[in-house]
Amino acid sequence: MSRFVLIVAGGIGTRMQIKTAKQFLLVKGLPLMWWTLRSFKDAAPDAHLSIVLNPNLFDVFKELEQKYGDSGANAIIPGGVERFHSVLHGLTTLPDEGVVAIHDAVRPFPPVQMIQKCFNDAALHGSAIPVTPLKNSIRRIDKNGKSTAENRADFLTVQTPQCFDLALIKPAFTVEYDPSFTDDASVLEAAGHSIHLCEGDPMNMKITTNEDLIIARALSN
Amino acid sequence: MSRFVLIVAGGIGTRMQIKTAKQFLLVKGLPLMWWTLRSFKDAAPDAHLSIVLNPNLFDVFKELEQKYGDSGANAIIPGGVERFHSVLHGLTTLPDEGVVAIHDAVRPFPPVQMIQKCFNDAALHGSAIPVTPLKNSIRRIDKNGKSTAENRADFLTVQTPQCFDLALIKPAFTVEYDPSFTDDASVLEAAGHSIHLCEGDPMNMKITTNEDLIIARALSN
Repeated sequence: MSRFVLIVAGGIGTRMQIKTAKQFLLVKGLPLMWWTLRSFKDAAPDAHLSIVLNPNLFDVFKELEQKYGDSGANAIIPGGVERFHSVLHGLTTLPDEGVVAIHDAVRPFPPVQMIQKCFNDAALHGSAIPVTPLKNSIRRIDKNGKSTAENRADFLTVQTPQCFDLALIKPAFTVEYDPSFTDDASVLEAAGHSIHLCEGDPMNMKITTNEDLIIARALSN
Repeated sequence: MSRFVLIVAGGIGTRMQIKTAKQFLLVKGLPLMWWTLRSFKDAAPDAHLSIVLNPNLFDVFKELEQKYGDSGANAIIPGGVERFHSVLHGLTTLPDEGVVAIHDAVRPFPPVQMIQKCFNDAALHGSAIPVTPLKNSIRRIDKNGKSTAENRADFLTVQTPQCFDLALIKPAFTVEYDPSFTDDASVLEAAGHSIHLCEGDPMNMKITTNEDLIIARALSN
């Protein structure tokens, strides 16, 4: 079964992508996204790697490739307004058969075995989503700002890569965008499919704050 | 208003406290818990600091104080089976008036201003719980292992110190233990009080895995 990877560097709508562009910050002498791509090269050398990027960052990306060497990406695809649209743009470039791993650009260290397990599980079950237990308590907050305790044992944290059979995920993404789509699995679920879970990894962290960047620099030792 | 701190090093029931004892792992030459206590000494020099600890670890703690110097704790209190019971033991030693900050031993770096804000807010509102947005998507899992997507925008991550007016929290803890009490705010809430939220901080991380320890060592630079 052919394997594909979409590395998604966020939407271009709400998050001031250009100013922050965490995926390009340097970690041990390489842009963070280079580490992400390297993780997939190691885990699935045969896979076709696409990155989905704000078109305003294409030039920056090319300059970085000149400076830091080939990122390993086989294709660069323009991002959309929200993450949903970016993933949709990426899926449109892929065939109707095979397995795709959709991954956050700012998760540089998904372990090789975890990536391989996700790919294999998705080929078997149609989907595979890495999850971990919640470390912290959570509260539900309503529209009026009132919050109530929830039992964290009833929840799981969702990581990426979220892996899917292309024959399922491509049709699922033909729906209209809904703000409740906070990840790709929720789109497949909205299309009526159940989601297969697999084991995530604490190393597979998302870099969203300056503190996280300190962490990424420490972990890349 | 008198200020008190309970540093809680987990229950003795379910988590193999002695073998793991993350709170004693070394971070830049000091046991992790020493950093936690130092954070509160810096933020509230007038506060009375108690630690709640598995009694089987009392000797280890004393040895560590001989080796690494005074931890800053004013009292050491034996822990209970679950975290709930440990907090209850701690609260029993405190007066009926004042404000208490209940904090995880394995959160070594709560920023000084955040601690002070929590204390002040709790004095005004009866409680103050530091919260942050969720970084990752979450799924709800039912008893059969079936999971469904939730909109993470509807949730907040809860940190510590959870600060309370002692006149409210002490009576709240006279209830019978319930497994849905995943933090101290949920106990106050079960007693019919609403919870005041304040702003948490990404630096204020919980150290629960070896990866987290690498992170703590990096952040203590």
